[in-house]
Amino acid sequence: MSNKDSKNYFSSDFKLGILGGGQLGKMLLYETRKFDIYTKVLEASEDVPSKIACDEFILGDLMDFDAVYNFGKQVDVLTIEIENINLDALEKLEDEGVKVYPPSKTLRTIQNKARQKLFYLDNNLPTAEFSRFAYASEIKDSVDNGGLAFPFVWKAAQFGYDGQGVKVVRNFSDLDDLPKGECIAEKMIPFKNELAVIVVRNPSGDVVTYPVVEMEFHPEANQVEYVICPARINEEVAQKATEIALQVSEKMQHIGILAVEMFQTHDDKILINEVAPRPHNSGHYSIEASYTNQFEQHIRAMLDLPLGSTASKVAGIMVNLVGAEGYSGDVVYENMEAILKLEGVTPHIYGKKQTRPFRKMGHVTIVNKDIAVARRIAQQVKETIKVISK
Amino acid sequence: MSNKDSKNYFSSDFKLGILGGGQLGKMLLYETRKFDIYTKVLEASEDVPSKIACDEFILGDLMDFDAVYNFGKQVDVLTIEIENINLDALEKLEDEGVKVYPPSKTLRTIQNKARQKLFYLDNNLPTAEFSRFAYASEIKDSVDNGGLAFPFVWKAAQFGYDGQGVKVVRNFSDLDDLPKGECIAEKMIPFKNELAVIVVRNPSGDVVTYPVVEMEFHPEANQVEYVICPARINEEVAQKATEIALQVSEKMQHIGILAVEMFQTHDDKILINEVAPRPHNSGHYSIEASYTNQFEQHIRAMLDLPLGSTASKVAGIMVNLVGAEGYSGDVVYENMEAILKLEGVTPHIYGKKQTRPFRKMGHVTIVNKDIAVARRIAQQVKETIKVISK
Repeated sequence: MSNKDSKNYFSSDFKLGILGGGQLGKMLLYETRKFDIYTKVLEASEDVPSKIACDEFILGDLMDFDAVYNFGKQVDVLTIEIENINLDALEKLEDEGVKVYPPSKTLRTIQNKARQKLFYLDNNLPTAEFSRFAYASEIKDSVDNGGLAFPFVWKAAQFGYDGQGVKVVRNFSDLDDLPKGECIAEKMIPFKNELAVIVVRNPSGDVVTYPVVEMEFHPEANQVEYVICPARINEEVAQKATEIALQVSEKMQHIGILAVEMFQTHDDKILINEVAPRPHNSGHYSIEASYTNQFEQHIRAMLDLPLGSTASKVAGIMVNLVGAEGYSGDVVYENMEAILKLEGVTPHIYGKKQTRPFRKMGHVTIVNKDIAVARRIAQQVKETIKVISK
Repeated sequence: MSNKDSKNYFSSDFKLGILGGGQLGKMLLYETRKFDIYTKVLEASEDVPSKIACDEFILGDLMDFDAVYNFGKQVDVLTIEIENINLDALEKLEDEGVKVYPPSKTLRTIQNKARQKLFYLDNNLPTAEFSRFAYASEIKDSVDNGGLAFPFVWKAAQFGYDGQGVKVVRNFSDLDDLPKGECIAEKMIPFKNELAVIVVRNPSGDVVTYPVVEMEFHPEANQVEYVICPARINEEVAQKATEIALQVSEKMQHIGILAVEMFQTHDDKILINEVAPRPHNSGHYSIEASYTNQFEQHIRAMLDLPLGSTASKVAGIMVNLVGAEGYSGDVVYENMEAILKLEGVTPHIYGKKQTRPFRKMGHVTIVNKDIAVARRIAQQVKETIKVISK
């Protein structure tokens, strides 16, 4: 089966494998149906969203060499929906002709945050200053001898996810409870905006970028409240951010979706924060707002099909649905009816049965021809719906 | 479980049942994921599109009383994706408190084309003149004694689908091969446009309508080539068509989606052709073009949730993908890459493994801010992609 013969993608011969059975995989699986692609999913637990959306579901540990290798041998193209995967297995599969997107090399660079930062440095890509430490205990010495000054951001080099593995360190006592392993200490960047650009690249080398999106933070809680497309920034900053995102993609020779998160500093510098080599939260708005959503685009890229238009039909804003503080247990979505009454509102409930504080339970997209109207309705959504327990 | 308590729709307690496992059901199932609704499907064969998109798949004959009744007892809301269902079972389920949408009464009216036509007559709803015959053999007598004149359209009263069970009769020899059973003979209506309006009604009585769409025919082959939204007709005709569609929905006290197909005559009269009480081919464009697509809308209606906006983000045109003449066997979608290069093009491949001439294998939606551009691209799509066999 050659990847040149696109007809195979629409026949039962072709098989797409997805490593990970979570919500991102599920949203990707919906889009495979448009193309009638045969899909297989590998995941350690049966109790995951993708279970009912794929053709075949295989139980196995994503960090286990044999599980990943044996699964990969059964498919033509292999993708991921989570970064923590056995990379040795991916490399062997690539050597044996399986198309792995993102390539294992991209994942090798990204899986370890210290290595990711060094990659930016080596390639003259702008990012916040940092120091790397093999052990967290070395940080104290560095502060003591003047190599590092409070405040800074501690980040675990590996296995951080959604705010875990990240901590603002303002004094010595903040260092006390840190995990011991490899980490980086990053200069704290006061920023005006957090931006993201999704770049998509296929094996033929075609590249497209989505419009720059903006993460709007809660003024006090310092939590992302809204992802807004297009970002409300000037054209020059948007071009600069897009240009840097393109450079990252090119230097990585990445294939598929690459979401590049960046800071816009107060003097309009752009610094790369981190990247995700897969469909990303910052692109969920695209399901409702874009001509080609990020999941369909990822499929087009992996299959070396022509990439679709990344333009927006309408402005889009995404609100994450997270478990409310003080509630744990069987989830209830309070005031769902009220938000469904608002114009252009689409909920995406991920199907997790149990809520707990700040757990990501779903998202809501708000689309409108007028971005200011969308922003007003998004605020109503945010203030109305509550993810609580029974 | 009461249908007043909307919270249940988003918990594992609530179950939605779908009678029929075809492509319409599959597209409906995709949308249930947004709401994390537990779904069960009843279908006689395992080899159907819905198989991999539902939580539970039950084998059973849709015309069998026990199969439908036993299935219906296991769900809270029951819907259909095909009209030929055992209605006695649906009636008993309704008597026992299961919410059946569309109601069995709607299906009773629609299943039989003679009864459907009489319904329009009884309710002063405009439709083409017709005569009903208990046996096709009676048609000849009627022509002989001047009660009926050539040409006319013969339609089987029951079990016609997609052009089957319909024939233009121009002379006595055309009558020779007709099936024997109950039928109607309908006056042939020369028309300017074939239009359709989708009406949606929920149990609380909220009603919305989608914009009028237009079916554009091939000038020679007399086959629908494009479904175009919005229809290129004047406002007055659009209002008249919408008004008549609303009347049908109200008289039927229908719940869920009702697609009303109509003729616009050369003197701008509107005549009802037929209705479908479910998501419909004429609404497929809504997946890409509308704020709320017809499948999500059907779910909102059945669950008595607020109905969503039926407005369009952009103009939408749908092209049906049917098997090319002269090809039967394992399907190949020729020139798929070429159409994916065009702007705003989304294919929907239904996953049928075998093609045969005129078999419906999928559809393609083309969206654009400018309907004239969309129409041009739609024509390129139509002229480029070919559904052939290996």
